[in-house]
Amino acid sequence: MTDGNKSDYVIIGGVAAGPKTAATLARRQPRASITLFQKEDLLSYGTCGLPWFASGDITSLQELLTTSYDIVRDAEFFETVKGFKAVTGAEVIAIDRERKTIQVKMLKTGETFEHGYDKLVITTGAVPKIPPFPVADNPVIRSFTRPYDAVNFRKMAQTGQIEKAVIIGGGFIGSELMGACAELWGIETTLIETENQFLPFVLDPEIAAIAEREARRNDINTITGAMVEKVDIDNDGKPIVYVQNQDPISTDYVFLCLGVQPNVTLAKNYGLDIGKTGAISVNEYMQTSDPNIYAGGDCIETKNRLTGEKFFIPMGSLANRHGRIIADHIAGIGQPFPGALGAFLIKIFDMNIGAVGLSEKTAKDSGFNVAAIWGSFPDKPDYYPESSTFTLKMVYDQNSRRLLGLQAAGKGDICRRIDVFSVYLQNNATIDDLLDFEHGYAPPYSEALDPLHHLAGIARAQLEGFEFISPANCTNKNNSQAIWLDVREAGEVDAEPVLSYSDKSAPQTLVIPLKELRSRLNEIDRSREITIICRRGVRSYQAAVILRAAGFKNVKITGGGVQALQ
Amino acid sequence: MTDGNKSDYVIIGGVAAGPKTAATLARRQPRASITLFQKEDLLSYGTCGLPWFASGDITSLQELLTTSYDIVRDAEFFETVKGFKAVTGAEVIAIDRERKTIQVKMLKTGETFEHGYDKLVITTGAVPKIPPFPVADNPVIRSFTRPYDAVNFRKMAQTGQIEKAVIIGGGFIGSELMGACAELWGIETTLIETENQFLPFVLDPEIAAIAEREARRNDINTITGAMVEKVDIDNDGKPIVYVQNQDPISTDYVFLCLGVQPNVTLAKNYGLDIGKTGAISVNEYMQTSDPNIYAGGDCIETKNRLTGEKFFIPMGSLANRHGRIIADHIAGIGQPFPGALGAFLIKIFDMNIGAVGLSEKTAKDSGFNVAAIWGSFPDKPDYYPESSTFTLKMVYDQNSRRLLGLQAAGKGDICRRIDVFSVYLQNNATIDDLLDFEHGYAPPYSEALDPLHHLAGIARAQLEGFEFISPANCTNKNNSQAIWLDVREAGEVDAEPVLSYSDKSAPQTLVIPLKELRSRLNEIDRSREITIICRRGVRSYQAAVILRAAGFKNVKITGGGVQALQ
Repeated sequence: MTDGNKSDYVIIGGVAAGPKTAATLARRQPRASITLFQKEDLLSYGTCGLPWFASGDITSLQELLTTSYDIVRDAEFFETVKGFKAVTGAEVIAIDRERKTIQVKMLKTGETFEHGYDKLVITTGAVPKIPPFPVADNPVIRSFTRPYDAVNFRKMAQTGQIEKAVIIGGGFIGSELMGACAELWGIETTLIETENQFLPFVLDPEIAAIAEREARRNDINTITGAMVEKVDIDNDGKPIVYVQNQDPISTDYVFLCLGVQPNVTLAKNYGLDIGKTGAISVNEYMQTSDPNIYAGGDCIETKNRLTGEKFFIPMGSLANRHGRIIADHIAGIGQPFPGALGAFLIKIFDMNIGAVGLSEKTAKDSGFNVAAIWGSFPDKPDYYPESSTFTLKMVYDQNSRRLLGLQAAGKGDICRRIDVFSVYLQNNATIDDLLDFEHGYAPPYSEALDPLHHLAGIARAQLEGFEFISPANCTNKNNSQAIWLDVREAGEVDAEPVLSYSDKSAPQTLVIPLKELRSRLNEIDRSREITIICRRGVRSYQAAVILRAAGFKNVKITGGGVQALQ
Repeated sequence: MTDGNKSDYVIIGGVAAGPKTAATLARRQPRASITLFQKEDLLSYGTCGLPWFASGDITSLQELLTTSYDIVRDAEFFETVKGFKAVTGAEVIAIDRERKTIQVKMLKTGETFEHGYDKLVITTGAVPKIPPFPVADNPVIRSFTRPYDAVNFRKMAQTGQIEKAVIIGGGFIGSELMGACAELWGIETTLIETENQFLPFVLDPEIAAIAEREARRNDINTITGAMVEKVDIDNDGKPIVYVQNQDPISTDYVFLCLGVQPNVTLAKNYGLDIGKTGAISVNEYMQTSDPNIYAGGDCIETKNRLTGEKFFIPMGSLANRHGRIIADHIAGIGQPFPGALGAFLIKIFDMNIGAVGLSEKTAKDSGFNVAAIWGSFPDKPDYYPESSTFTLKMVYDQNSRRLLGLQAAGKGDICRRIDVFSVYLQNNATIDDLLDFEHGYAPPYSEALDPLHHLAGIARAQLEGFEFISPANCTNKNNSQAIWLDVREAGEVDAEPVLSYSDKSAPQTLVIPLKELRSRLNEIDRSREITIICRRGVRSYQAAVILRAAGFKNVKITGGGVQALQ
């Protein structure tokens, strides 16, 4: 079936979705001819691992290019092991959909040739967004999406050429690069984000704030809500970053981390439908508007499983799943791609951050009748050594009780909860289904009740009339009529005072440990709004039960407690 | 509503389900009178934490008895914080169901009194099974279910009085105690199990074998398939354990870990229905055969969500959930208890072991058309530092493609997979649903495809005709007509030879690294059965694709590979 200028299946792109499609097809149809064209020299590199190579956690770039048994994933590997042909340095420059051929240009020689296909698969990935401000052309001012971006930085860092760095953009890559700069290399690092928070499109502000505080604790200079005006080169040949209303920042290295956009040039030029997100439009079997052409990975748009709307969500994990879907459909045994929930995890210094589903903001924008609750938890019993805590925020719909999203931040094991919640979202579950969660329980791993049980319980309490407020409101000074009721033990209050306690303009604070509350109710002014706070939220809820039973009318619980403010 | 000898709600038992019921009721109905009677002195102790107190991981018993903010969970705590009355040292000795009263005996004074109820809740827990062999009456020969069992051992271990210990029973507690004995205290430990494997009722043999090998690596003397005949005291006053067909074992301490049975004496004596498992029979709202009497925790039997059959599954996590179900139903706002899936986790030295759902054996016994597959995986990308591996076994029904169970063992993060799989089981999911799993992905936490995606893919391959065998069969010498085809690199084979390679009576072995396989097919005898093995299973699958495409008919893949034999 192979002849020099025709393959049964042709794949454009060799990083994630492309090789996965090719390898799955080769397993399904060992006799088919399959050719993959990759513009770059390298194939199937672990893009998501690049920040950890930059940081020094991963010793050599080679590790991102090899299998677990130390074989490089190069053209020979794909041919002898996986059973398909991969051609590198080969840019596909044209598609003739009528004749079912593509035009390929070999980048080293400039030679071009035609190659025919029965089915074509486009996995051209994403490219860095073009900055909305002028940027000088210099190798130390660059994005961070390709292996050579990481190699360039690492080489300079390793040889002590970078004392200061500026990261422009507080999204996934920008946030990961903070650690890469600061931890091993000790680089004095500034991160600048246009929005008022880190990770602005995937986290609500109070959860993003946990990440930002962790960055500051690690001496990152974080600047949010700030517009970059220009990145230039000064008279000494060093980069200089101009930020609106601030002094210019002199530095040695600038990362442009403004996000990526789908690489759709080829698809657009040859008339395939582009969706309103700007990415290639595909059906549930990943077929483009031309049924002989599939597309997958970071160049397509995806249905959001919760809202039904299309969104652009470039993720290596989804790209790999696309590869399987495409191969299976071509082989005639497919199941549809159900869309995405937006699950992600990110490590920022010692803090684990993650989410799945909708944030409070996106859920509101999508028309749900949104309620949110918070809680802070240990990841195993407090008595067990090495127990760590984290804060969760859950978003759900008040009418249907349907779960909509979970956000998590902390040093403890959040992955387990993100993954579990993802399966509940996959099943359109309600808060009641979450109460039926049967988790694996043993003290080295978990508590008898999982944090997700507690969240479901808190949501039920909220629906039954208990009022919960965001931990972010803890620093809200605008309500001087309110009383802060801190129900922690005196020693805890001393060790971790709430920010506003020492602030005269803040609301009045009353410290009554929970165990004394029933006997000291007469100390609290019933006519005022009472906002209860404790360490994690559990005692505040119990305190609210006591106050409500005693006839207090205006009682609020601070979700997640003081722990959520760390 | 309270008067001295009548409460709205009376709870018998103060460890897990009891206090949880009482606390939830007190929140739901702050004006109700609630009294809990507990036979022991201690309340709400973390039973599951006892092995970790015994081991020294937890410094003091106090930690198991206190809240996270260091307040002891005693009667005063329950009264002032949780809003119910708890009476300790109070054994309930009779129930008058007609008059709705109980008879209470104060153990210290011998005084008895009557106490009325509107609703009664029985949470009397479980008691150690009586050994089927004679046991001398001595404080160093004892079970391990109560705080004083742990205190007794710890005191002796700490003061160097225990050089040798024997654990009889390789279930949950027995397995956890191995580490408690050996790790910190350096006690020479023997574990004796009647069945041929550890954890015999919850794991299949090849997964249990991973736990047993870990125990042996940690110098535990493991004796399986052995009947204990007697535990006696020798002339020096030391315990001596007589095992059939073996030399008697002299020791300093004997743990009787033969499992627990529901404590149903009271329920039985007063005519409540007992199920065929021997535990109290309850409906989905945890009501016994008397609708005014509820029961929960380790004294009841539970519906298995997968088989619909009743089983006895004493678990602190379920007990806590029972407490909520009971309180909610009494308060008139309940949702039913759906039954259990049997999720568990256990730590054996550095090995994490867990399962959820049915084992291959129990699934077969329940009449499913069972298939099983295996795989070994890293818990994060191999290139990421601190990546650890584990082996999974998945059981599903071949007719319906429904998922039935997952077993896991290894040093890597298995908890996440057990919990996620549990939610799939809760939703009656199929292997196809598992392919739609959207996990949180970032190199510090996970690979682009989760092990569960791979398992689903392997199951599909199995249903399409690929044959997988248990890693346990790797040491099967009975098929001398077969060829072992090891497709690892030469260096890997040298570093981790398969047991049978040096054994002349074992089947013929052929080492052909995967990348050379296509070009060396002529070295393999097509008429023979070919069993392929690699490190984790991935390469064997690819090798099977190559062999089948080349017309080989009798090809088997060793699930989980050499890693599953570590």
